[in-house]
Amino acid sequence: MSSVKSIISLSGGMDSTTVLARLLDEGKKVECFGFEYGSKHNPYEQAAARAVADFYKVSYTLIDMSAVASHLQSNLLKTGGDIPEGHYNDKSMSLTVVPGRNIIFLSILAGIAWSREASEIGIGIHQGDHAIYPDCRQSFFRAMGQAIREGTDDRVSIIAPFLDTDKAGIVKWGLKNSVPFGLTRTCYKDQPVACGKCGSCRERLDAFERNNQEDPIRYENGPGQVGR
Amino acid sequence: MSSVKSIISLSGGMDSTTVLARLLDEGKKVECFGFEYGSKHNPYEQAAARAVADFYKVSYTLIDMSAVASHLQSNLLKTGGDIPEGHYNDKSMSLTVVPGRNIIFLSILAGIAWSREASEIGIGIHQGDHAIYPDCRQSFFRAMGQAIREGTDDRVSIIAPFLDTDKAGIVKWGLKNSVPFGLTRTCYKDQPVACGKCGSCRERLDAFERNNQEDPIRYENGPGQVGR
Repeated sequence: MSSVKSIISLSGGMDSTTVLARLLDEGKKVECFGFEYGSKHNPYEQAAARAVADFYKVSYTLIDMSAVASHLQSNLLKTGGDIPEGHYNDKSMSLTVVPGRNIIFLSILAGIAWSREASEIGIGIHQGDHAIYPDCRQSFFRAMGQAIREGTDDRVSIIAPFLDTDKAGIVKWGLKNSVPFGLTRTCYKDQPVACGKCGSCRERLDAFERNNQEDPIRYENGPGQVGR
Repeated sequence: MSSVKSIISLSGGMDSTTVLARLLDEGKKVECFGFEYGSKHNPYEQAAARAVADFYKVSYTLIDMSAVASHLQSNLLKTGGDIPEGHYNDKSMSLTVVPGRNIIFLSILAGIAWSREASEIGIGIHQGDHAIYPDCRQSFFRAMGQAIREGTDDRVSIIAPFLDTDKAGIVKWGLKNSVPFGLTRTCYKDQPVACGKCGSCRERLDAFERNNQEDPIRYENGPGQVGR
């Protein structure tokens, strides 16, 4: 077992779940954190995150930042308008951007990592243009990593094990390493079963399709449904 | 009047108060935010911040991040041990570091600036070695500014009008521009009157002394007391 202690933001989605699996596979000690930020799909995400943490027998701590998020404007939040349907990079999806979400999550995790003497924060940032989500891009990851190293006196780094692959590459690694994708949650909508139509669902289905695999979760229109 | 809209974290201390005065002096529209993060001196800070905001007739919004801060470890917080006495850069003062505080504040402000269509965040970072406060250093400011520009698609920048001067330089500008230093609060201790002994008080008194001015606030040991 490596002596490295890592913390991650476990959203309950595919990417962070696979990052968790990967860090554990590397022999690291991992503690998971989730954020309650008032998003419509938060309850489903959190249930998925807990199921994943239980599966891997790691801790999961929920951080309540709903008071902070009440000052942010986004249709992803309970305080905002409807979730649009469409491709992940459609302009309409910009309504689902939570301004600064990853900047804020990473900053809080930096403070927690320092407080708990963890030396790294693992995140699921990966390749892709992320036209409307600037804080999912590799250039952001590099700049934020530098800011956190400076701001913590080199105590804390950000690592992104899937930085050089794409969503399909994450699914590929996960399938090979028995990641329980059936426990994960990706849909942005406020409903228990994935819609298969929002940008987030479509990106997920596409990643499975490119691996010639059916997504194990259930969709409104049937199992692993790709007809969208 | 400039059309630039700025937001700042107004702590009620000297630096952020002078930044507010400076941005208003440049004709900018400024909105102020404060953070409730469970520090022992928060109530006094917040009262000072409100008094300063009222003085300048600008808005002041308090953001409750106490739930987030409950996961951080510091003697500055109600959940931590005693506040040490001594010079600001003494090793003992490292107990007062709130891990990642400025990283977190700036990140939240980045999300709020984007949400409110403000293009810049003003902060009071200034020269000095800041031996134990890495997220007060100029190198952190530059790296964090880059991370926020990347993470907001160039919508939001950080500006630090006093980056190239020191605390005495801030006092100098403030005195020249009638900044109401008498309304500000600097002491780290959980008491209404400034102790004059904690690192924060001593740094403040030193800045006034270097301007050959008495600090207008009251100290435990008398007015503008420098005998420390």
